[in-house]
This record gives sequence, C-alpha cells and structure tokens, in this order.
Amino acid sequence: MGCIQSFRQCCDRPKNTNVRISLPAVCFVWQIAMIILFGIFIRYNEESDTHWIEHKTSNNISSNIENDFYFRYPSFQDVHVMIFVGFGFLMTFLKRYSFGAVGFNFLIAGFGLQWALLMQGWFHSLDPMDGKIKIGVESMINADFCVASCLIAYGAVLGKVSPVQLMVMTLFGVTLYAVEEYIILSLIHARDAGGSMVIHTFGAYYGLSISWMLYRPNLDQSKHRIGSVYHSDVFAMIGTLFLWMFWPSFNSAISDHGDGQHRAAINTYLSLAATVLTSIAISSLSQKTGKLDMVHIQNATLAGGVAVGTAAEFMLMPYGSLIVGFCCGIISTLGYIYITPFMEKYLKIHDTCGIHNLHAMPGVIGGIVGAITAAAASKDVYGTEGLANTFDFMGKWKDMMPTQQGGHQAAGLCVALCFGIGGGIIVGCILRLPIWGDAPDNSCFDDDIYWEKRTGNNFLFHLSETI
Amino acid sequence: MGCIQSFRQCCDRPKNTNVRISLPAVCFVWQIAMIILFGIFIRYNEESDTHWIEHKTSNNISSNIENDFYFRYPSFQDVHVMIFVGFGFLMTFLKRYSFGAVGFNFLIAGFGLQWALLMQGWFHSLDPMDGKIKIGVESMINADFCVASCLIAYGAVLGKVSPVQLMVMTLFGVTLYAVEEYIILSLIHARDAGGSMVIHTFGAYYGLSISWMLYRPNLDQSKHRIGSVYHSDVFAMIGTLFLWMFWPSFNSAISDHGDGQHRAAINTYLSLAATVLTSIAISSLSQKTGKLDMVHIQNATLAGGVAVGTAAEFMLMPYGSLIVGFCCGIISTLGYIYITPFMEKYLKIHDTCGIHNLHAMPGVIGGIVGAITAAAASKDVYGTEGLANTFDFMGKWKDMMPTQQGGHQAAGLCVALCFGIGGGIIVGCILRLPIWGDAPDNSCFDDDIYWEKRTGNNFLFHLSETI
Amino acid sequence: MGCIQSFRQCCDRPKNTNVRISLPAVCFVWQIAMIILFGIFIRYNEESDTHWIEHKTSNNISSNIENDFYFRYPSFQDVHVMIFVGFGFLMTFLKRYSFGAVGFNFLIAGFGLQWALLMQGWFHSLDPMDGKIKIGVESMINADFCVASCLIAYGAVLGKVSPVQLMVMTLFGVTLYAVEEYIILSLIHARDAGGSMVIHTFGAYYGLSISWMLYRPNLDQSKHRIGSVYHSDVFAMIGTLFLWMFWPSFNSAISDHGDGQHRAAINTYLSLAATVLTSIAISSLSQKTGKLDMVHIQNATLAGGVAVGTAAEFMLMPYGSLIVGFCCGIISTLGYIYITPFMEKYLKIHDTCGIHNLHAMPGVIGGIVGAITAAAASKDVYGTEGLANTFDFMGKWKDMMPTQQGGHQAAGLCVALCFGIGGGIIVGCILRLPIWGDAPDNSCFDDDIYWEKRTGNNFLFHLSETI
Repeated sequence: MGCIQSFRQCCDRPKNTNVRISLPAVCFVWQIAMIILFGIFIRYNEESDTHWIEHKTSNNISSNIENDFYFRYPSFQDVHVMIFVGFGFLMTFLKRYSFGAVGFNFLIAGFGLQWALLMQGWFHSLDPMDGKIKIGVESMINADFCVASCLIAYGAVLGKVSPVQLMVMTLFGVTLYAVEEYIILSLIHARDAGGSMVIHTFGAYYGLSISWMLYRPNLDQSKHRIGSVYHSDVFAMIGTLFLWMFWPSFNSAISDHGDGQHRAAINTYLSLAATVLTSIAISSLSQKTGKLDMVHIQNATLAGGVAVGTAAEFMLMPYGSLIVGFCCGIISTLGYIYITPFMEKYLKIHDTCGIHNLHAMPGVIGGIVGAITAAAASKDVYGTEGLANTFDFMGKWKDMMPTQQGGHQAAGLCVALCFGIGGGIIVGCILRLPIWGDAPDNSCFDDDIYWEKRTGNNFLFHLSETI
Repeated sequence: MGCIQSFRQCCDRPKNTNVRISLPAVCFVWQIAMIILFGIFIRYNEESDTHWIEHKTSNNISSNIENDFYFRYPSFQDVHVMIFVGFGFLMTFLKRYSFGAVGFNFLIAGFGLQWALLMQGWFHSLDPMDGKIKIGVESMINADFCVASCLIAYGAVLGKVSPVQLMVMTLFGVTLYAVEEYIILSLIHARDAGGSMVIHTFGAYYGLSISWMLYRPNLDQSKHRIGSVYHSDVFAMIGTLFLWMFWPSFNSAISDHGDGQHRAAINTYLSLAATVLTSIAISSLSQKTGKLDMVHIQNATLAGGVAVGTAAEFMLMPYGSLIVGFCCGIISTLGYIYITPFMEKYLKIHDTCGIHNLHAMPGVIGGIVGAITAAAASKDVYGTEGLANTFDFMGKWKDMMPTQQGGHQAAGLCVALCFGIGGGIIVGCILRLPIWGDAPDNSCFDDDIYWEKRTGNNFLFHLSETI
Repeated sequence: MGCIQSFRQCCDRPKNTNVRISLPAVCFVWQIAMIILFGIFIRYNEESDTHWIEHKTSNNISSNIENDFYFRYPSFQDVHVMIFVGFGFLMTFLKRYSFGAVGFNFLIAGFGLQWALLMQGWFHSLDPMDGKIKIGVESMINADFCVASCLIAYGAVLGKVSPVQLMVMTLFGVTLYAVEEYIILSLIHARDAGGSMVIHTFGAYYGLSISWMLYRPNLDQSKHRIGSVYHSDVFAMIGTLFLWMFWPSFNSAISDHGDGQHRAAINTYLSLAATVLTSIAISSLSQKTGKLDMVHIQNATLAGGVAVGTAAEFMLMPYGSLIVGFCCGIISTLGYIYITPFMEKYLKIHDTCGIHNLHAMPGVIGGIVGAITAAAASKDVYGTEGLANTFDFMGKWKDMMPTQQGGHQAAGLCVALCFGIGGGIIVGCILRLPIWGDAPDNSCFDDDIYWEKRTGNNFLFHLSETI
C-alpha cells in the first residue's frame, strides 16, 4: 500500500511542461536507433530490388505490371492520406488544439511507421536465408495500419498528454500491435483484412486504458476548452471525409489480388453509405428540435467502415454490408449521446474524441460479424477454390472447416481485447511518471504549451476563449 | 384556378423548421427499403465474386491484374473525392452555411449512391439468368456519377431548402437520371463518357427548375448572408481544386480500357488548363481596377472539364481541347457577371452557386461539341477498328455512320434538357408543399436552423453577421 | 554607368497596381499562342491514339493493362495534387495572402503546364517522321514537374510580385527548365528521377536570384503582415501534408516500370519519415522552453523528399534513405533559424517561404547523394542487367562505368545551379521594369490589391491586422 501511495505522490508532483531536453532527446535517440536497426535488418524485397528482372525471368512473369506495386500502390496512397490527413484533421475540431492534433499526429506517425516496419518485419517477413527483413509496398501498407492503431489511441488522450508521452505510447503501441497481430493472424489463423480486431479494437482499448490510468479528477479546469468553433469543425470535416472516402482502400489494401480487393472495396463502400443515414437520423432524434450535431457527423458516419473491416473480403453480400452499416451508425451515435458521458462520470475514463464509439464498439462488432460470416461460409456460395482462397485454407490449415474458422475469429477478437486493455494499463502506469512534461489540469486542450505562437495570435486566442 | 390558388395558399402557410420527426423517418424508412431491395436484387459480379478464379480459367484470363478493379479503381477513388470533398467544400463559401454545405452534401450522396446502384442496375446490369443486378467497380463509379447530378442541383437551392427536401429531391433526381441515362446511352446510342449531357445538363436544369418553382419573392431578408468571408473562400478553394485536379479521372473513369481512358484524361487536363487563364482574364477585365473575383476562380475555372465531357474520349485533338476550355472560361465567367443577376431579376430563378454558369451552359456546349466531333469522325483519323471501338459501332449499330452518330448525340442532348426541365418542374411542385421543414425567408443561408451549435459559437456568428 | 543609373531610375517610378489591361492581355495572348502551337505541333502518342489497337497487335502487347496509362496515371494524379493543393496551400500561411497564394499558384500552374508540354516536347518527344510532338501520360507528369520548379520560385517572391510578373517568370522559367533538363538528362546523361537537381535546385536558385534582383530595401513597411494567424497555419498544413504524403509518387512517377517505381517509392517514404523526427527535434531545441515552431513543421519536414529525389531509384538502401532524411531535417530546420535571417540581412535576398531551406540546400544535397550513390554502384549489388537498366547504360552509353556516371551526376548538378542563378538574374532584371503592376513596399503580403473582397471582409481584415 505504501508503495502505491508513494508512486501516486511521486506522480502528483507539480507539472513541468518544458520538453526542450526530453523531446529532442527522444527524437534523436530513436531515429538513430532506427537507422542502425534498418542498416542491420532491412533490405528491399525481390519486387523492389534491381534483381526483379531476373526474378521475372525465373518465375515466368511476363510483364512489369505484375509487380505487386501496381496491385497495391494506389491503395497504399489512399491509406497514407487517411493516416496523415484523415486522422490528423479529424482531431482538429478542438478550438485551441489544432496544431497539437495535426502536428503530433504527424510526429507519431512518422516515428511509428519506421518502428512498425521493423517489428512487423521480424514477425512476418524475415528471410531465413540471410536473416534480413525484405520490404515492399505491402510492408508500407502494414506499417501504416500499425500506426493507425496508435493514432486511434491518441484520440482518447488528445489534449492531455505531451509529445514525449505520445512517443512512448507509440513505441509500446507498435510493439504490442506487432505481437498481437502475429498471434491473431499467424498463430490463430484469423482473417482480418481491414483490421476491425487487430487495428481498431486493439487501438481503441489501448487508448482508453491509458486514458483511464491518466485520469485527471480536476479536468474541469480545462472544460471550457473542450469544444469546437465553427471553423475548427469545418477543418475536422476534411479529416472525416478523407477517412470516409478512402476507407474502401483501407479495407481492401492487403486483401487477395483480384476478387478479394474488389469485393472488400464494394462492401466497405456500401456499409459506409448506410452509416451516414442512420447516424444523421439518430443525431436529429436526439435533439429537441431535430437539429444535427457536428460531432456525430464527424465521427459516427465512419463506424460502418470499422465494423465491416474483418468481413469485407468475405461474401458478406451487399445487403449484409448495408445492415452492418445501418446498425453501427445507430450504436455509434447513441454512444456519443449516452456512453461517453457515462464513462467519464462513472468509469473515470475521459475520451476526448469518443474513440469508444468510433473504434472500440464498431471494432468488436466487426470481429463478431467476421466470426459469424466465416462460420456461415459454404462451398455453395464461395465455390471450392474460392473458399480455400478467401480463408487461406492452405498448407497446415488445408483441412479447416468454416465453422472452426469462426471460432478462430472469435479467439482473435479476445486476443485483441486483452492486448489492448492489458497493454494500455501497463503503458498508462509508465506514462503517469512525472517526467514526461504533460500539461497541468488547467492547461489541457491548449496547444500554447507546446507550440510557439507568433505575435498577434494571442488576442484571437483569448477572444475565442472568452466567447 | 381555384385549385391552383388553394394550392398556393396551402404552400404559403407559416414555416415550421422542426425536422425531428421527418428527417429521421425519411432516413430510416429509405435505408430499410434499401436493405430489403439490395437483399432481393443486388449481388457481386463475376469480377468481385469468389468465383472469379473459375471465371479467369474459363475466359483464359492470365492474371489477376486483368480484373476491372485495377483498370478503374484509382479513377473511382478520384471521382469519390470529387463527390464528397469537391462538391461538399465548393459549397462552403457562404459565410454561415458551411455545415449545411458539407453535411447535407454528405447525406444526399450517401443515400443517392445506394438508390443509384438499384436504379441503374435495373436498366443496365440486370442479369437475365437470375434476375439479379451484378455490381462491380464500374457500378460504383456510375452511382457516384448519378449522385453528382443531384449535388449539382443542390447548388441551385443551397441554403434555401431543408434536408428532408434534399432527400426527396435526390430520390426523384436519381430516378429521373437513371431513365434519361438509359434513353440517351442505350436507346439513342449516344456516347457520353464524362456526362456533359447526362450528368451536367440534366442536373443543372433539374436544379434550376426546382429553384424556379421554389422562388421566394422575399429572399431579400436573407440577402446579407449570401456572401463569403475570407476563410470560407479558402475552404471553397479546397473543393475547387479537388474537382479541378481529378476531373481527368472523372471524364476517363468509364471510358474504354487502354487508349480511351488515356485520351480522355489528356483532353480534360488540357481543357481545364486553358479555362483557368480565360476565367482569370475575364474576371480581371470585369473590375475597374483589374482585381480578381474569388467566385469566378472557384467556379468558372471548372467549366472546361464539364464542356469536354462528351468528347473527351473522341479524337478531339489537344488543340481542340484547348479551344473548348478557352471558350468555356469566357462564357462561364461572363455568366456569373451578367446572366445570374439577370435570371434572378427577370426569370425569378435564384441560383445560389451559379450552376447555370458552371454546369448548364458548359454542359450544353459539351453536348454540341460532342455531336460535332462525332459527326466529323473519319476512318482516316480513327482507323477502321478505332472508329468502331470509340463509337461502339457494334452489334445492331455496326452499320452506323459518324454523321448519323452526330445526330444521335444531338438527340441525346435534347432528352437531357427535357428530363431536367420537366422533372425539375414536377419535383419543384412537390417540394413546395409546406410539410418539408424548409426555412422562412428571413432565415435562409443560415445553418443555425438545422445544426446544433456548441456554446460560444453564437457570439462569433453574430460578430460575422454584423460586419 | 549612366545607363545603369537611368535603368534604376526608370525602375523606381511610383508603382501602379492596376493590372486590368496587362493581366487579361497576357492571359489571352499566351493562351491563343498555345492553341496555335498545339494545333501545329501536338498530337496523341501511340498509347493514347485510337490506333493503339493496331499498335498492340504489331507489338505483341497482350492486354490493355500494358498501356503506360495504368503504370503511371495514379502517380500522375498524386503529383497533380502536389502541384495544385500542395504548393498552393503550403503558401497560404500568410495571414492576408491566402487568395494570392492559392489563386496565383493556380494561374501559373495552368499556364505553365501547357508551355511545358511544348518546350519539353520539342526537346524530348518530337517524332522525326512527321515533326509532331506526341504526348501521353508521361508528358503530363513531366509538365507538372516543370511547373513545380516555377512554383518553388514563386515561394521566394510570394506577396511581393504581381500576377503579370508571375506569368513572365513562368514563361522564362519553363523555357530555361526545358533546356537545362535536356542538357542534364540527355546530353550529360545524368539520372534524376525525382528532380533534386533538375526541379528543386534549379527552381530554388531561379527564385532566389529573382528575389535578389527585386530586393526592396523598404520592405519593413509591410513586415507586420509577414506572419500567420492560427487558421492560416492550419490551412498551410493541408499543403504540407499533401506534399509529404504524395512525395513517394513524385519521386517514382517517371522511374522505370517495375522495381524502379517500387524502390523509388520506398526510399522516399522512409526518408520523409526520418525528416519529421529531426525537424521536430531541432525546432524544439531552438526555443527556450522547447516549444515547436509551425514554420519548421510545415516546411522542413519535406526536405527529405527533395534530397532523396535523384537517388530514389538507385539502390540507396532503406537505411541510406533514413540517413538522408535525418540530415536534411536538421539542415533545413537550422536553415530556417539561422540562414534565412542571414540571407535577408547580409545578402539582400528576401525569401518569403524559405525555399532556400526547403528546396535549394536539400536539392544540392540530393544531387551530391545521387552522384555518390551512382559512383558506388556495383554489379554485386545491382546485378548485371539491373545495373544497365537502372542507369540506362544502353546505346551509346553502354560502356559507361558507375564511377563515370557519378561524375556526370555532379556535372548535372552544376548545370542546374548555373541555369538557376544565371536565368534568375536575367529574368529578375526584366521583372524590375516598372510596367508589371507590382505592389508598393507598404502593400506587400496583402492580397487586397489584386483580389476583390466582398462587403464585410474589410473589418475582419483590419481586425486581424491590428492584433
């Protein structure tokens, strides 16, 4: 008991937000480490190496267009936009935290993708011949995916943490992600093309657990800054729309070539369309005069993309996608209205962007939909070869039945939950240490602490604060 | 006479802008209807179905890269950005209607694309074997195209209608679009790759006719809100630029594989470049001191893309594209200076975004250019096979001559005009009924009516109103 | 001496900013010239012509997907976004020059790409059979590249020149670019996929030399307007992020099909990620309390993409890319802190956007890195065929050695520097003539001079000026 108390006392020391030593130190040390590790481990794979021309001959590949680059690069670019513009601008809605939203998003994504290439490489693409990790366009997509889970987690703690804390959170987040991804996809052999479980469920619970550990009882002092102004809401819509539009690319980016990518894009497109209508309907119902709330439009409209992630490459059928989107729009919007305030009041979890409604619940739903769809798969619908291809019933898994696959999907969901919650609690403890330069309770949601403002800005700031 | 008078009286009842029942009802009922109809009718096509692997074998397709997905998906994503970010942000220019612009754009596009998949499917991709509509990436592009015509129409009535009216307008708009598209493309056998006639002419006259039917004689009461502030103009430039940049993808998205898509992209690229220069020239000429008007830059610079839509896949030649763009930049900018005020004053048509200058006139020009280019086509220029491919002189049309094709193109333009004007008048009558929750004359162009604003915003709003 | 003095007197006449004659005249004359020249010279190439179908047969091309369109169009669209949204929005950071930034960027890019198609066509794609220039998707990418160099130059003079001056600057800039590109790539046989030398070094020194020639000793009168407000910085981040995200497409857009494009994308992706961390580290170090400066985040984070341009398609190795990015983030940020003020004070070069730090220095570094990487190339690493392919050791260059190639790379860099500085000085002299309508010293950085503002805006402007 004494130990915990002294830990708590230690954590409650007055805050010092000067990060002039710690932030550059973290950036330099980690970037130099990346260079060294990349030097030791990372090489081009056979499709991005100059030996591609010999590889083509020896594998009877007739044309350069068969290079994986042409199958996946357009999707990669769309995913890239989601990571940097989508997530970055979605979080600009706070009236005084736009620099922090888009700038720190940039920082942690820039670091995270390098670390993800290494971590995922060790688990997935280590070449046994020479002990090197071989990277190509698919590695870049996977690195962006991994970063997405950390950016989701950032949504829960937006405005309450320092950039140094974010770097630490990303370091551990990427590490945990790579392990749970390996367990879920390789050991358990669950399928998760769009990452409902691997990315969204894990990322959201990781962020929520950290937010729980970092709970600030006196956050009321910054409460007046948790809100938007007209222009910041329009900026946030840039993020929303780029996420919404490119989600079909996200869910189809690493699906099987051919019908897999094609089908994943269609399912996501449809699910998202349905979500828009039900989000707006519930948003309008929730107000006395039927007015819409921008928070719901910015966030809940995306829930359908999350929830269709796992099943996107399966034969979910177009109407199935609509049903998923229909339900998620309702659940996510209701979450913003009822669950977020409840969680803050009773569970002591403050969730700045409402990631519980946008990622956690839809992610879990996505995992369940995936399990059901997989369990219900049949040779009638998929065809013999189609079934084997879609669920990768090959090699040591060649005798697997769809019902079994359903069980494995459910197991995968549990792993994602455990890693998210468990990992978040541990990392949250680390982040409570008073050495990271986070803001005092009365200066949260104000990027003045970490961003130099040029002359003249202060007046506008104070104006927007007082009104 | 008495009947008309009582209709008018009925329509002139005091306005009630509470949409708390009607908006959720419309969203839910229509979304549920979509789910049921999708369940009955819509399935994956052979390229997005798991049977693709068998289809490949039976059709001697050597590689997955031959899946239509890889020919069209990058263009689809560009079109998707145009629909949601392009049209959405283009309309944010009004100082107090940015939420309404981007939010309602989102709503009607989300609904419209589902209904378009059904309507277009019944006409174009019904499989006679099983009575199902088979969808793939091309269906998604066509659905987005169809939605574009409704968003164009929205531009004419921006700020003056309720979301419920927009949903009704979209329901009928998509239906009319599918019918006129079927008549023009399939029955008349006109070609219209970029939709100058099918999308722009139809959509613009549909919107203008509705605006005419909904004419508000006392709109002066809201006049002070029809204008922009500095930041809203910059937001609108986001819309302009994404439309401008991705228009080559729009016009080439459903052209023939190979040279067709390639040529359509080049022609559109060139036409748009020429439009920028002449729009700016006329804009500068129109002011005493040569200053530029942001309205012209935001809108008229896009006219070249509209006008080259029909002929983009033909052998218009690079200089031909430049000439089309050159003329449209002039005409469209002059339209903003002279025709829009004229239409409002004498024809009682209030056109908020000036769609007459951006879509209607350039669309008609595009139809005419298409007819002339088609009529002038020759085997010398196109080659025998090239001519047949480009104009699809196959099957029952295999003996058609280019001059005949020119006539068919002209006929197509007339059909688009008739459907636009006729449909708009009928739908406009329906929308005059006083049950849709539209704003009273003194509250137009103010999204306060339909959007919940968080504390503090009102002050800024009133500030921006008074100045 | 008397001659120079009278030239100077002539240049110092009071300024007249009315461009009502000159701007439309320039636009119309040049656009009409373009139409005539395109009519005489420009035709579709064999991949965008209707004879593609015959070309396919005669060249044994099995599928339409082998059309260059499908190899390059997605990259083209990304580059297009960088040119119009990337460069345009990056320059919106000034508090009162957003219209000028994004609008004039639009104008000069729209004109420049047409002129570039002609100039580059004469040097690179003139068909000796019929004396015509044959264009396709690669021509469009190259035209966009050429425009990029003029937009870089615009960054140095942002806010201080008139649109007519910009048009003149673009006319000469494109012409010089085409010549130096021909010398560097064709005569000297240097490789420069991402244009570190050809685009960035040339463009930056061209702009800096012009800015030097146009030096205004009394610019202090406008100094209070050289700065940003909160929202203009967020707008600028849109530009930054779209440049950052799509830079891998920029550097890979015209690389060799297959592994060339693939490798260039990977190298750029990695280099940019490393730059983010070191830019942020140095930015934080440079302030007493470790706060970050938005200028550095907006600009220095991009330096890694510039510096990896030449070597992106070589076997730079992933860690090599990280090292390049690491160094450039540091150098570029230090440039903003120390070199830009130094240049203004001692060299009389005012550089509004700091292009010396973002393009000039990283461009030169990129040229040097390219030379070293080329000189160090070996058959062990590249393979025999790979080496010949990557460095294009074919035809008359088939006996070239990598070490020689390194020398040629260095020679290319010198040519780019000479053309940039020499061309800039000459064009700068022309632009000093007092006939172009540029702003007086006390009205720089204020787009009120060239842009019509609607009622009500002035108040907000004056407000933002006073605070």
